[in-house]
Amino acid sequence: MTGQTQRNIYLDKNFDRFVAQLSEWLAIPSISTLSENREDVRRAAEWVEKRLLEIGFAEPRIVPTAGHPLVYAEWHIDDRQPTLLLYGHYDVQPVDPLAEWLSPPFEPTVRDGNIYCRGACDDKGQVMIVLAALEAWVKTEGTLPVNVKILLEGEEEAGGDSIAEYVRKNPNLLKADAVLICDTHMVSPEQPSLVTGLRGILYTEITVTGAKTDLHSGSYGGVAPNPLHAICVLISRLKGEDGVIAIPELAANIPIPSATEKQFWLRDSLHIEAALHAEMGVEHCVGEKNYPALERIGLRPTLEVHGIKGGFTGEGAKTVIPAQATAKVSMRLPANLDPHTVFGWLEKAVSTDMPNGYRVRITNLHAGKGVAINPDNPFIRAAADALAAEYGVQPIFMREGGSIPIAALFAEVLRIPLVLMGFGLPDDTVHAPNEKFSLSQFRKGMKTVADYLARIRNSGI
Amino acid sequence: MTGQTQRNIYLDKNFDRFVAQLSEWLAIPSISTLSENREDVRRAAEWVEKRLLEIGFAEPRIVPTAGHPLVYAEWHIDDRQPTLLLYGHYDVQPVDPLAEWLSPPFEPTVRDGNIYCRGACDDKGQVMIVLAALEAWVKTEGTLPVNVKILLEGEEEAGGDSIAEYVRKNPNLLKADAVLICDTHMVSPEQPSLVTGLRGILYTEITVTGAKTDLHSGSYGGVAPNPLHAICVLISRLKGEDGVIAIPELAANIPIPSATEKQFWLRDSLHIEAALHAEMGVEHCVGEKNYPALERIGLRPTLEVHGIKGGFTGEGAKTVIPAQATAKVSMRLPANLDPHTVFGWLEKAVSTDMPNGYRVRITNLHAGKGVAINPDNPFIRAAADALAAEYGVQPIFMREGGSIPIAALFAEVLRIPLVLMGFGLPDDTVHAPNEKFSLSQFRKGMKTVADYLARIRNSGI
Repeated sequence: MTGQTQRNIYLDKNFDRFVAQLSEWLAIPSISTLSENREDVRRAAEWVEKRLLEIGFAEPRIVPTAGHPLVYAEWHIDDRQPTLLLYGHYDVQPVDPLAEWLSPPFEPTVRDGNIYCRGACDDKGQVMIVLAALEAWVKTEGTLPVNVKILLEGEEEAGGDSIAEYVRKNPNLLKADAVLICDTHMVSPEQPSLVTGLRGILYTEITVTGAKTDLHSGSYGGVAPNPLHAICVLISRLKGEDGVIAIPELAANIPIPSATEKQFWLRDSLHIEAALHAEMGVEHCVGEKNYPALERIGLRPTLEVHGIKGGFTGEGAKTVIPAQATAKVSMRLPANLDPHTVFGWLEKAVSTDMPNGYRVRITNLHAGKGVAINPDNPFIRAAADALAAEYGVQPIFMREGGSIPIAALFAEVLRIPLVLMGFGLPDDTVHAPNEKFSLSQFRKGMKTVADYLARIRNSGI
Repeated sequence: MTGQTQRNIYLDKNFDRFVAQLSEWLAIPSISTLSENREDVRRAAEWVEKRLLEIGFAEPRIVPTAGHPLVYAEWHIDDRQPTLLLYGHYDVQPVDPLAEWLSPPFEPTVRDGNIYCRGACDDKGQVMIVLAALEAWVKTEGTLPVNVKILLEGEEEAGGDSIAEYVRKNPNLLKADAVLICDTHMVSPEQPSLVTGLRGILYTEITVTGAKTDLHSGSYGGVAPNPLHAICVLISRLKGEDGVIAIPELAANIPIPSATEKQFWLRDSLHIEAALHAEMGVEHCVGEKNYPALERIGLRPTLEVHGIKGGFTGEGAKTVIPAQATAKVSMRLPANLDPHTVFGWLEKAVSTDMPNGYRVRITNLHAGKGVAINPDNPFIRAAADALAAEYGVQPIFMREGGSIPIAALFAEVLRIPLVLMGFGLPDDTVHAPNEKFSLSQFRKGMKTVADYLARIRNSGI
């Protein structure tokens, strides 16, 4: 019996316990953006610290920060083996709109082979994959195959400022040969994939002020500034129906993809668009018609409005013209663009496009650079081999539209290869109601990561 | 001593009690649009029913309706005297944004000669003016000078469907020679005015649906429909920065004002715009540049967005693309236009202007026709004389931008003159935080209405 067979048997035998443990962790509402959940975020950190201790890490520790704490642990087995840095996050997104959840967002519920809960896929379930794989090694071999450092944060959904500061200040502590991040998606349950690109993010708040007080639309309608209307005009100028973002500096700085990549996007475009239509429940994709869907998701910048606050949105009718309105507007950016530079461009565009008669203020709530990965290194080749062995089909390399700001920082500060091997599925609805994680992916993920650790032993040094 | 002097002495002597009674009524949060305030609305109706009984009305009664109740009372004194129908409403607007109130919205507070509370001016304070004037007659003369019917509703801020049905079904009960409505504003504390025009209103909700579920802007940004963005594009198409409403049928049907009226609007335009700037705290008015401000408020149609719901507007950042978004959009309309006809035009414009890839639904929440009044009748002349006597200056006739849907219905069903004599001031911030009513206006209003009743005795039959 090979070591991997033994580890797989161990993982199968203990699978129900792993699901139970994940459920325990998921039930802690560690929403990092809401101050009322501050203690819950801390409890989620303490929970995973205890798990690391149970697995056998000698001194896992909670690292205080200006924001939510980090969790750090390391296990050094042999100077001749490579060191793998493992990253994940234990914080989750807010849950609204609450009414749309079929089961309460923090009551983990298994239905149809999936576990439903906020954080199930993003990212507690995927962190648990890594912990289960480590445990399988320790319990079957008495030790790990490579040196491991593990760093978990509690602010991934809230900008990640604390981990960024920590990484910049501790490059020696975090010194490693590669970093493995399980926080992305595969194309489908049958088609594993490795992510070679992540977009950066810029998240802003635009506040528009008109009159000094709310006004009655009867008495002042026709002469009063309406900040809600001004925001509509502004946003429609920043991005029109055609999906083109009207920031001149941006258009001139969007990278042109390689011919190979473009070919891949175009080859499967009909199939991919059909899959997207089914996932979203729509008849057509929206956006820039001249680019294939995967390029629009993986490489092109976006500008989205996530919410507009101001005036009256309750039951019935109120004829108020609000004094102020605020829009949450984010951009996704190709990896070559520094989001702080883009914030400057956006600031300028907002001031140009703003209708007359209003005061406008734009705030950068958080920003993170994107990532472009060259897959030609032993750590990514080993990941591809592990996926091929578990799924029976070669993985594809693809860009993902989301942002993991810390990934860019690891690449910049630690200068080591990034391995973005995620087990989420396109219909996991992360960041939305009824987030789930497939239990089959949960199980296959553990086995793949356990195998991956074996494959990088003796490699890459 | 004349009767009017006696009545004025009575009103001055009892003024503090009137303020206390108004405070008692104001403290009842009779918000008609919110279902949780249903019982409060009823309590406000019962409160005024009791006041009418105390004044001496024989059988005031609460009239149940499909919505909030009406309050009706009558006092017939003499077949040879005219009958005046008095209308007002005891319901109030919602109070959000709550944080902006300097004193709690339902704790009546006197500061600087004003009483602050939701409903202080609109319309409980003005109804109390009428009740105090009636009381002064009864207590000094033992009776009223004319026949009086009084009809108060609890749905003015919620569409007024119930009173509309009641008026249509009871034209004989409500038969009168004129209707007096105290629910409007004066130009300034020094310049009394009578309103000769009210705009109609159409209040709608536009719901836009994109995907079947909320989506993550990382994974789907670039291909996903964003209903919030679509609403921005739609609204900016319906009305641009220039304030022009892009509904072709509307443009062709806006009335052209008389030369006299245009002259009046233009004559004082600089002074009036300066006053509006001060009231609103802005440097410029917004809207259609080619029309004087008073024409834009009094006669031109408007299209305003009052709130946009959907996505995330809480603390921090959430990168959600919502499946659905809803905008509250109202229009103010010149008196010649039927709001139901305009709803059809708007429906057509929405369907034309809606970006591709979305489903859109527009609902007519409520609608009321505007009013244009010919001031040449004894009931308005008497009102002008009463104002001139109390304020020492001739009132001006002007159009007000707000809507009192029931006014149009009274004119249509009862075919009698409307007298819109209001005592609100431009800075009363009705429908907004810190609504107030000037105690000086409260006092002068009572005296004016008491005098008005004397002046219409023996007239107009």
